[in-house]
Amino acid sequence: MMSKVKNAMSTLVGGMLPHGHHHHHNHHPGGGHGCDGDSLPPRFPYGRPDFLDLTPELLQYSTEHAARPVITLKRGSRLSWRTGYAEVINAGKSMLNEDQASCEKLFVKKPNGKHRNSTVLEDNGDGTGIPLHFWGIFDGHAGSGAAIMASKLLHRLIADRLGEICHLLENPTSAPPICLAKNGSPFQAEAKKGAAQEPDDPEAISDSTVRFHMEKVVSLESLVMGVLETAFKQMDDLIEKEKASYAISGGCCALAAIHLMGKLYVANAGDSRAIIVRNNEVIPMTNEFTPESERQRLQYLGFLRPELLGNEFTHIEFPRRIQHSELGKKMLYRDHTMTGWAYKTIVEDDLKFPLIYGEGKKARVMATIGVTRGLGDHDLKVYNSNIYIKPFLSCVPEVKVYNMDENKHGPDDVLVMGTDGLWDVTTDREVADAVSAYLSCCDPSDPMRYTLAAQDLLMRSRGVPKERGWRLPNDRLGSGDDITVFVIPLAGHESET
Amino acid sequence: MMSKVKNAMSTLVGGMLPHGHHHHHNHHPGGGHGCDGDSLPPRFPYGRPDFLDLTPELLQYSTEHAARPVITLKRGSRLSWRTGYAEVINAGKSMLNEDQASCEKLFVKKPNGKHRNSTVLEDNGDGTGIPLHFWGIFDGHAGSGAAIMASKLLHRLIADRLGEICHLLENPTSAPPICLAKNGSPFQAEAKKGAAQEPDDPEAISDSTVRFHMEKVVSLESLVMGVLETAFKQMDDLIEKEKASYAISGGCCALAAIHLMGKLYVANAGDSRAIIVRNNEVIPMTNEFTPESERQRLQYLGFLRPELLGNEFTHIEFPRRIQHSELGKKMLYRDHTMTGWAYKTIVEDDLKFPLIYGEGKKARVMATIGVTRGLGDHDLKVYNSNIYIKPFLSCVPEVKVYNMDENKHGPDDVLVMGTDGLWDVTTDREVADAVSAYLSCCDPSDPMRYTLAAQDLLMRSRGVPKERGWRLPNDRLGSGDDITVFVIPLAGHESET
Repeated sequence: MMSKVKNAMSTLVGGMLPHGHHHHHNHHPGGGHGCDGDSLPPRFPYGRPDFLDLTPELLQYSTEHAARPVITLKRGSRLSWRTGYAEVINAGKSMLNEDQASCEKLFVKKPNGKHRNSTVLEDNGDGTGIPLHFWGIFDGHAGSGAAIMASKLLHRLIADRLGEICHLLENPTSAPPICLAKNGSPFQAEAKKGAAQEPDDPEAISDSTVRFHMEKVVSLESLVMGVLETAFKQMDDLIEKEKASYAISGGCCALAAIHLMGKLYVANAGDSRAIIVRNNEVIPMTNEFTPESERQRLQYLGFLRPELLGNEFTHIEFPRRIQHSELGKKMLYRDHTMTGWAYKTIVEDDLKFPLIYGEGKKARVMATIGVTRGLGDHDLKVYNSNIYIKPFLSCVPEVKVYNMDENKHGPDDVLVMGTDGLWDVTTDREVADAVSAYLSCCDPSDPMRYTLAAQDLLMRSRGVPKERGWRLPNDRLGSGDDITVFVIPLAGHESET
Repeated sequence: MMSKVKNAMSTLVGGMLPHGHHHHHNHHPGGGHGCDGDSLPPRFPYGRPDFLDLTPELLQYSTEHAARPVITLKRGSRLSWRTGYAEVINAGKSMLNEDQASCEKLFVKKPNGKHRNSTVLEDNGDGTGIPLHFWGIFDGHAGSGAAIMASKLLHRLIADRLGEICHLLENPTSAPPICLAKNGSPFQAEAKKGAAQEPDDPEAISDSTVRFHMEKVVSLESLVMGVLETAFKQMDDLIEKEKASYAISGGCCALAAIHLMGKLYVANAGDSRAIIVRNNEVIPMTNEFTPESERQRLQYLGFLRPELLGNEFTHIEFPRRIQHSELGKKMLYRDHTMTGWAYKTIVEDDLKFPLIYGEGKKARVMATIGVTRGLGDHDLKVYNSNIYIKPFLSCVPEVKVYNMDENKHGPDDVLVMGTDGLWDVTTDREVADAVSAYLSCCDPSDPMRYTLAAQDLLMRSRGVPKERGWRLPNDRLGSGDDITVFVIPLAGHESET
């Protein structure tokens, strides 16, 4: 993520590099993470995704900001579904690549009984259980600790939570029971027991009878969505908890896709993006969560809980900062209820800094952070203040579902997942055209075709080094951010053994 | 609105009928409005829209619940753009028709200088100013007071607020200034004046310079959207204020469309609906605001301000009521962050009644109200309690814009606005097909064609009286609710003199 947290004071922990190496600090006031973690060990050492299997030399080489080498899956390595992968480090905004990624095949099993989830590429389990495929990309900011931890653990939390409803997943034809006993079997309370029954009030009886018999039918699909939502929350809580014992720096956007029982679930918290490209048609699978897209939610919180603004910020948005000489004049504004703009007379309180300020990629929450969902960031504060950002951030993803079984997929139909570095300079349409064109020229039996397509996409956003920065063929500026791309063939699960 | 407020205790005020006539009370616990207003005079007497010009006999006839006569615009009357109109009373849930409507042509003028907004059909002004067309439908509940008041005043508030930015509307090519002096002219603060300038801190200077020069460009269109949003708020505040002196019963959903300078703005607060039918294609112009569609907003408020739930309700949603015997078991739930469902262990607090409960048309906020946006309802409380509903309701509309000038319209292209009675039994597609079919068989020069089309739509939702209620031709149940329909020809403004 490119300068998402301004002038971050976080430390690089657990890496091969010493603490606190951010290449440049910009001049804006910015957020900082507390430094309590400096003396603690890292939760996981810095590295690149296990499936890349980098040697120490290659790991070092991957951090060359001048060359920005594109790192891809090795020929001979294989991810599930022949998934393609490519990544590149930023142009210098942080010493290390703050993006992380994971790709796992697991099996969903009942929690009692030993279950060993498999790790990369291999199925280490006994092959029983419901197959679960997982892809995740984690775009860190202000340090790589949270992104690394999430890339190591999020899929396990998801598999565990799915394990708890395993017996329901095994009966996909019947709707999940509303209530479960402790052993997980459906619990049926005796009819009317516990309902108010005053003999002198016949209405109360008929009312409660009706009420107890009204039940919403909940689908298995929305149960899996609930698993993803609560697993992200659990991951975020775990980061907070383990910060007591480990140094876990920064925060991260998290984008996860799982394939379970014929459906693809895409869960997004942050500004990464996933699209399905089918027959060269784009199907968006995510919305981005930014200060602009979540403005009203954040303003509403600031309005209801003004103490979170620490007397420094106003929840009202203005098109620019107000000067003292403008007191009593009228200025355009909008509050948490508005989409349009209106004029208001400027009062003393309006001179405070706006909670949401700036436009597009420069929009910030409390002048500090440019994304509004993700994991970590528990000790992120407004620069030089005691105002915490975390209450304004959400760790809960938006989940979209794509029914694989309802669609036929050719070898060129793919799910593309990328961090914002990819999408900042290349549109959905351009990505779809590029990946379709690339794959159509590529031998369908080449096991590297999706990795080569991922590399091609990445190059289109990174560009090549010229005198004035990284440039695209049309001489526009390329992305100087970390970039991570998965290209996942949707026909891949059919070819899976 | 059909039983949107359960068992409402409100009084019918200012009508030709005595107080408190609701035909039946159902057995669910429900909300009631305070009765403080009983001794106060009505703000406006009960009646039907002025443009119908009903005689006292016809007004009485319009309330016949057994016949449910369809009331339309008279032949010879004319609304702007040849707008068609039809209405019918409910099947007996309230003595009077709680829907109201208005259709006005006004002129936007500067506030200083005498401005007289025109009333129905005629342009009483001097013909100067920017022409403004207004259509509004107001679906009342628990009394007709708020709906009547809004139908009389909302368009005037909108015209007045537009008047305040009249000089900006007259210069549509330049973006509105961020800041205005008291006289309304753009105010330009001196550069850097008022910015922090500590000579020993060069960063502070460059920072504040940059910051003050960053300005969002706000469009004239979003200024008009802001006018609609703030005018609804002002209308709601006015109802609250005038309740001190007048009896203004109940609340209402409000759907307003305005045409200004080549654009159609549709503002919706509630569960009425507007669609454009163009070339028999449907373009939705509204979203409905109901306990289901606004669940997360309401739960978030209940979560942040639990005192608003009065220790009687829980912000967590369950698929049904929980019985006491289910304590300690696991039940499906979702909170304000979730779209999917998950299991939680039931604790004592979960036995409270859910803030949002029921499905579809039966969904309610605190067992009381079935819509979540609108005007009025300031003293609506949960039945038999001191818990106010109003904090959970929003009076701010969602505004959508349709650029009339960018599209060519034939005589059969229309905007259809209807209260929920219309849409409960007839889908968007069916409405579009019916109106297209009807108009294509109708003499394009007949001034009554849009009113006849509105009447045709209304009949399709009302049906005809049979042994077991009002029935549609396919024998499905018709709507027993009040129904109000505008059919507005989009080519109408071209034919306007």
